[in-house]
Amino acid sequence: MASIQRVSFLGLGVMGFPMAGHLQQAGFEVCVYNRTASKAAKWVEAYGGSEADTPAGAAQDVDAILVCVGNDDDVRSILLGEGGALAHARPGTLIIDHTTTSADLARELDAACREKGLSFIDAPVSGGQAGAENAQLSIMCGGEPEAFESAQPLFDAIGKQSRLLGPAGSGQLCKMVNQVCIAGILQGLAEGISLAKAAGLNIEDVQQVLGGGAAQSWQLNNRALTMAEDTFDFGFAIDWMRKDLNYALAEASRLGLELPVATEVNGYYRELQDAGMNRCDTSVLIRRLAPEWPGK
Amino acid sequence: MASIQRVSFLGLGVMGFPMAGHLQQAGFEVCVYNRTASKAAKWVEAYGGSEADTPAGAAQDVDAILVCVGNDDDVRSILLGEGGALAHARPGTLIIDHTTTSADLARELDAACREKGLSFIDAPVSGGQAGAENAQLSIMCGGEPEAFESAQPLFDAIGKQSRLLGPAGSGQLCKMVNQVCIAGILQGLAEGISLAKAAGLNIEDVQQVLGGGAAQSWQLNNRALTMAEDTFDFGFAIDWMRKDLNYALAEASRLGLELPVATEVNGYYRELQDAGMNRCDTSVLIRRLAPEWPGK
Repeated sequence: MASIQRVSFLGLGVMGFPMAGHLQQAGFEVCVYNRTASKAAKWVEAYGGSEADTPAGAAQDVDAILVCVGNDDDVRSILLGEGGALAHARPGTLIIDHTTTSADLARELDAACREKGLSFIDAPVSGGQAGAENAQLSIMCGGEPEAFESAQPLFDAIGKQSRLLGPAGSGQLCKMVNQVCIAGILQGLAEGISLAKAAGLNIEDVQQVLGGGAAQSWQLNNRALTMAEDTFDFGFAIDWMRKDLNYALAEASRLGLELPVATEVNGYYRELQDAGMNRCDTSVLIRRLAPEWPGK
Repeated sequence: MASIQRVSFLGLGVMGFPMAGHLQQAGFEVCVYNRTASKAAKWVEAYGGSEADTPAGAAQDVDAILVCVGNDDDVRSILLGEGGALAHARPGTLIIDHTTTSADLARELDAACREKGLSFIDAPVSGGQAGAENAQLSIMCGGEPEAFESAQPLFDAIGKQSRLLGPAGSGQLCKMVNQVCIAGILQGLAEGISLAKAAGLNIEDVQQVLGGGAAQSWQLNNRALTMAEDTFDFGFAIDWMRKDLNYALAEASRLGLELPVATEVNGYYRELQDAGMNRCDTSVLIRRLAPEWPGK
């Protein structure tokens, strides 16, 4: 596969905006597309590069097309159909989807790409907004080894590690595992910090001393203090986490597995959405544990 | 407070045995006591130092008495009453309890120590058997600042960090927070690894790529592979975890808090105990998720 020089980046949300920026800064010629065009203009102002008015326009004459949008339907509408990027990409173009989607969609996109002589990698990420901004993402990939190999320079520009987990869909399956793990970690941390606060302990001290033992986690390091301070207007929104957990629970169910705590935590998030906290960071689980929470 | 030279260590289990050894190796003159005397003889063979036949015998003429036994009742029987260490310690002796107990017991011991002119620190640890063997424990302390200060050379010999959380009992409260966090982390990890296995992913790859993102945890780093390999004959036994969670849940209830996932996981551990896995490492939670588990 020829080396990658010109790329398009479709979707400039809190993740995509800095990711596309790192690619431009690493020396790739980046053309961006965003549904709300003003964001694309803002991106060009910040980083240089160019913008396209449509997915089709962004798809022409590039070596790779990267996508980072909301959910399965968003990916479909930007990539598939007559106006979608796939129909306008030249043969040999590498398609990389950084969106967290179902594994089924990844397999469907892989098949659509093969039909058109394109390569496909599903490549959801972990590390959050901060990871995207600092080019410290962890990238979970599914696809062919050659395609993964040729994508390395792109991944190096946006992440601290990338790994090929298997054929198309495997990146998404790994991301589901990631989110299921996080659901348990965050609820455990929420219960622990609630207990610490009720017991009158200093949360910075608790965070320090727990961080040296078997309760250590990225979430403890990055969310214990903000949980204790009741600050949630940042980070990874519940709306996205629920989407991800629903993909994971559907996949588990297909595989004949029950995931009781992931199911339970998904229900807690639904309650918090219903209470209007849908844009709050996932660590807002601690609010449900307060004695004044309705239903207690 | 005079500097500490001669110490006794009561309780030579999987934690106490290496902890007492590190103290002897760091230059303290250590006298050990263990209910099963053969273990004390084995310790002296391994490290030098001396052994006592009774807690009372171990208590005499030392600067500090360290305890690491099973539960509240074990601590009471070794420290309190006519034959207990407290009755035989000289005034000014520092008593350090590394056992994970209730916060109430820590307060009771503190009061008993004050009455006899002794100092007390509750100092439960995290980091497991490996942490004890490698002198890498994280030590959570409750007590007076001067007593904590004078204990520093001891803590430096067995741990990588120690922290004073507040008055007597605060170390135990912090340890409860630690165990509540771990309950959520481990169940989340068990569900995640179950999903990864069912989806056919390579667990080493999953561990690597998750370890670079927001799902990172000590448990992921140290237990994902052994969980996947169905290996549980090591580590921290369910019997101990249930004791710790029961202390935590009782304390939470006193404080008017519900901890739903810690409660749920405590119930899973009871099921696993009932199935004869009580000496298995706490990561054995993954076995309950297998489709063949009774009741599925």
